[in-house]
Amino acid sequence: MLAIENYQGEFVAYLNEYSTIKNPKNLYTPIDYILNLGGKRLRPVLTLLAADIFGGDYKKALNAALSIEVFHNFSLVHDDIMDDAPLRRGKETVHEKWDVNTGILSGDAMLIMAYQLFETYDAETFQALAKLFSKTALEVCEGQQYDVDFETRNDVTIPEYLKMIEYKTAVLVAAALKMGAIISGASKEDQQSIYEFGKNLGIAFQLQDDYLDAFGDTETFGKQVGGDIIENKKTYLYLKALENASDEDAKTLKSLFGEVLKDNSNKIEITKELFISTGSAEKTKREIENYTNKAFSVLDTLDVSDSKKAILKVFGNSLMNRTV
Amino acid sequence: MLAIENYQGEFVAYLNEYSTIKNPKNLYTPIDYILNLGGKRLRPVLTLLAADIFGGDYKKALNAALSIEVFHNFSLVHDDIMDDAPLRRGKETVHEKWDVNTGILSGDAMLIMAYQLFETYDAETFQALAKLFSKTALEVCEGQQYDVDFETRNDVTIPEYLKMIEYKTAVLVAAALKMGAIISGASKEDQQSIYEFGKNLGIAFQLQDDYLDAFGDTETFGKQVGGDIIENKKTYLYLKALENASDEDAKTLKSLFGEVLKDNSNKIEITKELFISTGSAEKTKREIENYTNKAFSVLDTLDVSDSKKAILKVFGNSLMNRTV
Repeated sequence: MLAIENYQGEFVAYLNEYSTIKNPKNLYTPIDYILNLGGKRLRPVLTLLAADIFGGDYKKALNAALSIEVFHNFSLVHDDIMDDAPLRRGKETVHEKWDVNTGILSGDAMLIMAYQLFETYDAETFQALAKLFSKTALEVCEGQQYDVDFETRNDVTIPEYLKMIEYKTAVLVAAALKMGAIISGASKEDQQSIYEFGKNLGIAFQLQDDYLDAFGDTETFGKQVGGDIIENKKTYLYLKALENASDEDAKTLKSLFGEVLKDNSNKIEITKELFISTGSAEKTKREIENYTNKAFSVLDTLDVSDSKKAILKVFGNSLMNRTV
Repeated sequence: MLAIENYQGEFVAYLNEYSTIKNPKNLYTPIDYILNLGGKRLRPVLTLLAADIFGGDYKKALNAALSIEVFHNFSLVHDDIMDDAPLRRGKETVHEKWDVNTGILSGDAMLIMAYQLFETYDAETFQALAKLFSKTALEVCEGQQYDVDFETRNDVTIPEYLKMIEYKTAVLVAAALKMGAIISGASKEDQQSIYEFGKNLGIAFQLQDDYLDAFGDTETFGKQVGGDIIENKKTYLYLKALENASDEDAKTLKSLFGEVLKDNSNKIEITKELFISTGSAEKTKREIENYTNKAFSVLDTLDVSDSKKAILKVFGNSLMNRTV
């Protein structure tokens, strides 16, 4: 077992080797660009970690880890077009630096390249990985579609919202872990358990992202605090506040979330007060804890040593206790 | 063996069974729409035909045939966005009927669904099909990128053009046939031969499409005659004409292909005269014959009965002798 930073280092070294710009250059240069924008490489690290946890060799999992990262970046390129986002990790998005057509086509190529990265595995492993990948990738598309649909809907329920973030975010974390388990020949039960661990932790992580967007520390959160409020995003905080608000508060909140303003400081202030006064902030924190505990409780069933369970728990905690 | 129309019928029946609109509806309705716009279903029919030719059962090849058709339609949806095309088979394109974001996301889902259609095959067959599919799909992306690049380049060579149409069009025809061969357990040599047959026939077909665009019969060609000339497309006819033109004719042709006009009848007339006077029209016809003959000569090496070779030849001829 390596320390997390070392998995990261090994992965980035492997990614650098993989990054060569083939012809046609206009197709492959944007791919090289987005893959090298950085990031925490959280998902591929999970694949490597899981491979080691289940008694295999993380080196055998490098191609699957890379596949997960290439897919994740494919989805960023296409999502950024759909969201009309100018920046990604503080740099120009692909469709901004080049154009929308380049973003579409380079993204398509990345999705195919992600499948190709499984080709080094034997036929049985290849099929298991590709099946899991396809199921996951399609769920990510469905999650993105739900997210788009929610923008123009006023009747989004909390279960629908939870399903959306599960599909859009959590299943990829879960699949990343399960791939490591598959490559190391873990039992079906362990494969399923590590998947559930990842899925619940992924949901907790996304809910925490929602929470920190409103209540995080500007210095350490890394994104603009209040961004979701400015964009009128129907997050868990918002939906829970509506559910618990008096008729008058609900009216205020809905009217705030119908506005597009130049100066948002007032809107952010009032919204945050409503998130607190309706009890939504507290309830969101409790939901984050619920999902985190659910993730950890699955670990008990895993057929691996306690020290390895501890590693997953430390990792989960470090993810969830990021300073706010 | 069935008659071609019967393969078509069997395929369309299978496609209809496959077409169900799942949730989220906004993701899957456009997929159902594009898959049911019709068309000759040429590629999937080739997969079924090849499966029978190599002694298998076409029914076992239905999922692979469907994968080829879903992929083909994915590429149409994304290409239509890139080309800003309003119509496809006389109906609104997906991004016109819905919007660009819908076209991107539904297309992405189709690419993944194409892979999922291989999941019913055993692991070895699955891997062989998915590998061929990924290689082909990436080449199609590369071909599309070359096509885009050529629009703004003035130094496109004929070998470059041939490579572009090989990637953009011919390799999918080749792969469709090879998949049938793989499913029926044909030898590696036969798999390679049927691939070469399809590739050469595909190139011949695309060159003929270029030829018919200028010299086809408006009544039977199905597309607007002169469309490539109006859009200043650097087709084989154009590149060959430039290669053989006097300095003056070359200047005229280049200047014509720098224009965007309201009334194109004059431009089309002069261009066609130049295609003829430079010998390009004749040379293009000869090149079409060359690729068709190359395709047919590969058939001799196949380890199947003469009557089966005859079926492929009849099919190839029917494709190439479409009335003009």
